[in-house]
Amino acid sequence: MTGRSLEAHHDGSELYVRTGTPTLGDSVPVRVRVPSGSAARAVHLRTVRDGEPEVIEARLDGQDEHERWYVAEVEVHNPVTPYRFLLDEPTGYRWLNGTGLHARDVPDAADFRLTVHPPAPAWAQDAVVYQVFPDRFARSGAQQSVPDWAQPADWDDEPLAAGPGVGQQLFGGDLPGIEQRLGHLERLGVDVLYLTPFFPGRSNHRYDASTFDHVDPLLGGDDALVSLSRALHARGMRLMGDLTTNHTGADHEWFRRAREDRSSEEAGFYLWTEDGYVGWLGHASLPKLDHGSTALGPRLVDGPDSVIGRWLREPYGLDGWRIDVANMTGRYRDQDLTHDVARRIRRTVTQARRDALLVSEHFHDASQDLTGDGWHANMNYNGFTRPVWGWTAPVGTEQPLLGLPVRRARRGGASTAATMREFAAVLPWSVTAAQWNLLGSHDTARIRTLVDGRDMLEVAVGLLLTYPGTPMVFAGDEVGATGTTGEHARVTMPWDRPRDWDEATFALYRELIALRRGSVALRRGGLRWWLAEDDVLAYVRETPEERVLVVAARAPWSGAALPPVLARGGMPEALRGSEPVRGADGTVHVPGAGPALTVWRLP
Amino acid sequence: MTGRSLEAHHDGSELYVRTGTPTLGDSVPVRVRVPSGSAARAVHLRTVRDGEPEVIEARLDGQDEHERWYVAEVEVHNPVTPYRFLLDEPTGYRWLNGTGLHARDVPDAADFRLTVHPPAPAWAQDAVVYQVFPDRFARSGAQQSVPDWAQPADWDDEPLAAGPGVGQQLFGGDLPGIEQRLGHLERLGVDVLYLTPFFPGRSNHRYDASTFDHVDPLLGGDDALVSLSRALHARGMRLMGDLTTNHTGADHEWFRRAREDRSSEEAGFYLWTEDGYVGWLGHASLPKLDHGSTALGPRLVDGPDSVIGRWLREPYGLDGWRIDVANMTGRYRDQDLTHDVARRIRRTVTQARRDALLVSEHFHDASQDLTGDGWHANMNYNGFTRPVWGWTAPVGTEQPLLGLPVRRARRGGASTAATMREFAAVLPWSVTAAQWNLLGSHDTARIRTLVDGRDMLEVAVGLLLTYPGTPMVFAGDEVGATGTTGEHARVTMPWDRPRDWDEATFALYRELIALRRGSVALRRGGLRWWLAEDDVLAYVRETPEERVLVVAARAPWSGAALPPVLARGGMPEALRGSEPVRGADGTVHVPGAGPALTVWRLP
Repeated sequence: MTGRSLEAHHDGSELYVRTGTPTLGDSVPVRVRVPSGSAARAVHLRTVRDGEPEVIEARLDGQDEHERWYVAEVEVHNPVTPYRFLLDEPTGYRWLNGTGLHARDVPDAADFRLTVHPPAPAWAQDAVVYQVFPDRFARSGAQQSVPDWAQPADWDDEPLAAGPGVGQQLFGGDLPGIEQRLGHLERLGVDVLYLTPFFPGRSNHRYDASTFDHVDPLLGGDDALVSLSRALHARGMRLMGDLTTNHTGADHEWFRRAREDRSSEEAGFYLWTEDGYVGWLGHASLPKLDHGSTALGPRLVDGPDSVIGRWLREPYGLDGWRIDVANMTGRYRDQDLTHDVARRIRRTVTQARRDALLVSEHFHDASQDLTGDGWHANMNYNGFTRPVWGWTAPVGTEQPLLGLPVRRARRGGASTAATMREFAAVLPWSVTAAQWNLLGSHDTARIRTLVDGRDMLEVAVGLLLTYPGTPMVFAGDEVGATGTTGEHARVTMPWDRPRDWDEATFALYRELIALRRGSVALRRGGLRWWLAEDDVLAYVRETPEERVLVVAARAPWSGAALPPVLARGGMPEALRGSEPVRGADGTVHVPGAGPALTVWRLP
Repeated sequence: MTGRSLEAHHDGSELYVRTGTPTLGDSVPVRVRVPSGSAARAVHLRTVRDGEPEVIEARLDGQDEHERWYVAEVEVHNPVTPYRFLLDEPTGYRWLNGTGLHARDVPDAADFRLTVHPPAPAWAQDAVVYQVFPDRFARSGAQQSVPDWAQPADWDDEPLAAGPGVGQQLFGGDLPGIEQRLGHLERLGVDVLYLTPFFPGRSNHRYDASTFDHVDPLLGGDDALVSLSRALHARGMRLMGDLTTNHTGADHEWFRRAREDRSSEEAGFYLWTEDGYVGWLGHASLPKLDHGSTALGPRLVDGPDSVIGRWLREPYGLDGWRIDVANMTGRYRDQDLTHDVARRIRRTVTQARRDALLVSEHFHDASQDLTGDGWHANMNYNGFTRPVWGWTAPVGTEQPLLGLPVRRARRGGASTAATMREFAAVLPWSVTAAQWNLLGSHDTARIRTLVDGRDMLEVAVGLLLTYPGTPMVFAGDEVGATGTTGEHARVTMPWDRPRDWDEATFALYRELIALRRGSVALRRGGLRWWLAEDDVLAYVRETPEERVLVVAARAPWSGAALPPVLARGGMPEALRGSEPVRGADGTVHVPGAGPALTVWRLP
């Protein structure tokens, strides 16, 4: 990302690693491309075997006027085998790893990796996920009693943004309501419905489950979930659930029993202190589970009859789980069972459904927990949401993501790309390719509130739908919903509020989702950064079949000539945005418009 | 390290973290210094608890015209608690972690860390280690029979550099010979003798032990070790052994029995394949141990009667172990028991001697293995040797460290410091402060062969004796020994070869070792980088009692004015090298001489 030419490149996508998930002992050819102008006299591959590096020379595997390709075999000697490349240049060797080229020695953290652990199922890489907060999406009109903890709200009320009562405002959305609106999801083009918890609790968010055995009657009960699941599957869509493996509600049947009888099996499910019990982040309403309990395993995570297993089976047939507070699950003081729990959940999930998906919630640096045998992928707040916010949004006065006690910073393109690249580099490509990218969720402000105007929204949504990984759209974003906090962002869908329904934004989401669906490169291609300047980010997504250039500009910029390697073979085809311009000297120019999102299929 | 001023700084040394090893639940105040000119409106502390960040504001804890100090409490909620600082600045927040300031979000790898695991014993931080390869240091003159594998060499022969016979050249050094020469160690000023293996084998290096029960009779046997140990302790010096926990020799009594009887307990100690057994890096002479064997534990690593434990006890009284091939110990294919083995060795070592030291051999990125409850520290090839070689040595034609198949690169100061800083940043400070820094060993070329002339040697040795950690000197370096490979570097001490005995080099080592011994800041101080330019590296080592500035120049450079914060309180005192110069404007100048090593005590 120095200047405007393309550097030597490798990633884990098909152009570079043709083999699927390897088995221990396999020898996997990995390819690297080096510009013809490179000073490299030779290219070597460094792998690590049982903790010890081994360096072998790569072979030239093809070349043309623009670039040379080298190949070398990685022996998959360990379940996760790190590798990187060495470019032997007259001025000293350089390393190529996931963060790029380095003219010095570097630690192993950003090494590329091959892993024997199967990646997320293939459908996940082609999917666009739609997140629904059940209380706020749609009401079926079924009669509901009002529970004692709730404050009923009118559908058109504005949600509270913070403070007392935020968890008690009950708008009354339910699962039959969602089922009635599946046509909206189809029109939008999404194909996975991810529901935040459907278990009963004492709050509108239901992250304080009182049981894991039944769907909240307020949402329509078990039958409503069965019906919704069947309706989705009939349309070729999928359904993901949301489980709190870190804690339950204080009203949970397990915790009630635990309190009543401290010698009960359930008492062993929780963490007790001299003063009482451990609540998640100190919340007494959310007693933290103790995964050191052997009795908890079969009830919650292990086997087909556990909570994890049961809901994946018929008649519910969930296609996977999103695991709430995965970063803290199994972690408490000197107990750190997170990897063990993740591995066991993965086993149960995969046994229940071969193609089930397991996604973690971890707002922070999740690299230590994404080793491949646990969570398939993570909600990519750190590697996508935050840097994209920082680049597209003006300096704001709102509390930013995660409550850092400072105003949101506006960052330039170079540091934005560096952050995106660094957070991706600490993961195997198989994880990067399955990360859930998002512009916001039920836990954040709305992207529409963060950016100025629809042009900038277009840039942000453009990044969402062209970046490697699985895009997730929080219901409402596609019609222009606003919100200053996570709670405030949980607005109801404006089915009958035309003023709140932004048709142009819906058209934008629909267009870009369709663009992604129509491009194998956008769904499954590698990622080669081209430009990372203050006001423009540009990258190439590519598979053996297709190359797509994405240029996202947050402001007018200088424009740039395509490097010859990207312009070879004729004129690019504009899939959206500016048409390519041929200069007097024959070079193809990307116009410097902005804010703008330009997507070209390269010849 | 941008420009020539000092940035906001924190490290784990006493100025910033006054508490010793904390206990789980402790609240530890950590301090950070920020230049007065900083735009920071506030400073915050970010810690991670059970996987979740928490951010609190730091309090102003003092200020003067040059800088402001802030303090905040880290709650040691987990055994290893990461933390970093956030500087709230008008142009956007910046993070301060172990690699410096970042105007973007960064992963957690370079966070500072508090750990409940006790650090290396206090003596290690004050020590200078002297490495002896027993076959090459000194002969006592005792009669020795020549074993069948050996090729006797004359003391004044040049060792073979590579190829057949390198392991068989037997020069006949022994432990009584070492004991007779302890006066040399005292004159030099070192206080820890680290012996490469003293167990018998079928090679001159003895990394292919045939037993762990006795000292090689060629070295004088068990009694000679007892005598050497007592002689060292009587002089207030210490003794470290060297153990191969990764493998034994094929001639080892355990392996003989294993081969003779595949149902023997010892057969379970090794890794067997269809074709035979697993040898370390494929060497049939070095069968790899299987730490999955429960019977191996009590024999090799667990408890006072294990090999690890026994030699630490009287009458041998070793003060610690250096663990050979620690990076591969317990690692094979899908078995990774390295942390478990390290933790168990640490337990045995500490139970045998409260103040024993445990150091690993790991030539590469050891950060994942230096979590604090296993190895105390590592031989710091990656974080010290390689970058210092790259900066002080000309581009060489020799095979560099670890056999990278390229010529050694000469690197500028900025990338050198960045590498040193990055490899340190991925470790707790308590580990950094105990790392064994070295300019070479029995496994590398000699520093004297790598650098041009004694002036440059002075720069390299200056870095060795002023950088945080424990300096290790490979016997012979101090009298100017040369060598192009590890094997070639294993030259005999030139006791009776005055032409090979460089008195000026000996005086240099002696002076710099004494300089370190006389300065608490050099031994125990923090590390603040000041200059990292092409030809000059400069840093401040400081404790509450003393501040020392180290300026290492590999060539003439521009010189620089001391920042006022370093010049306050009067003129620096030159401990070695150039005297400070007061300019007409009152500023204190560091002269731009080079190659040169300048060390000043700051007022």
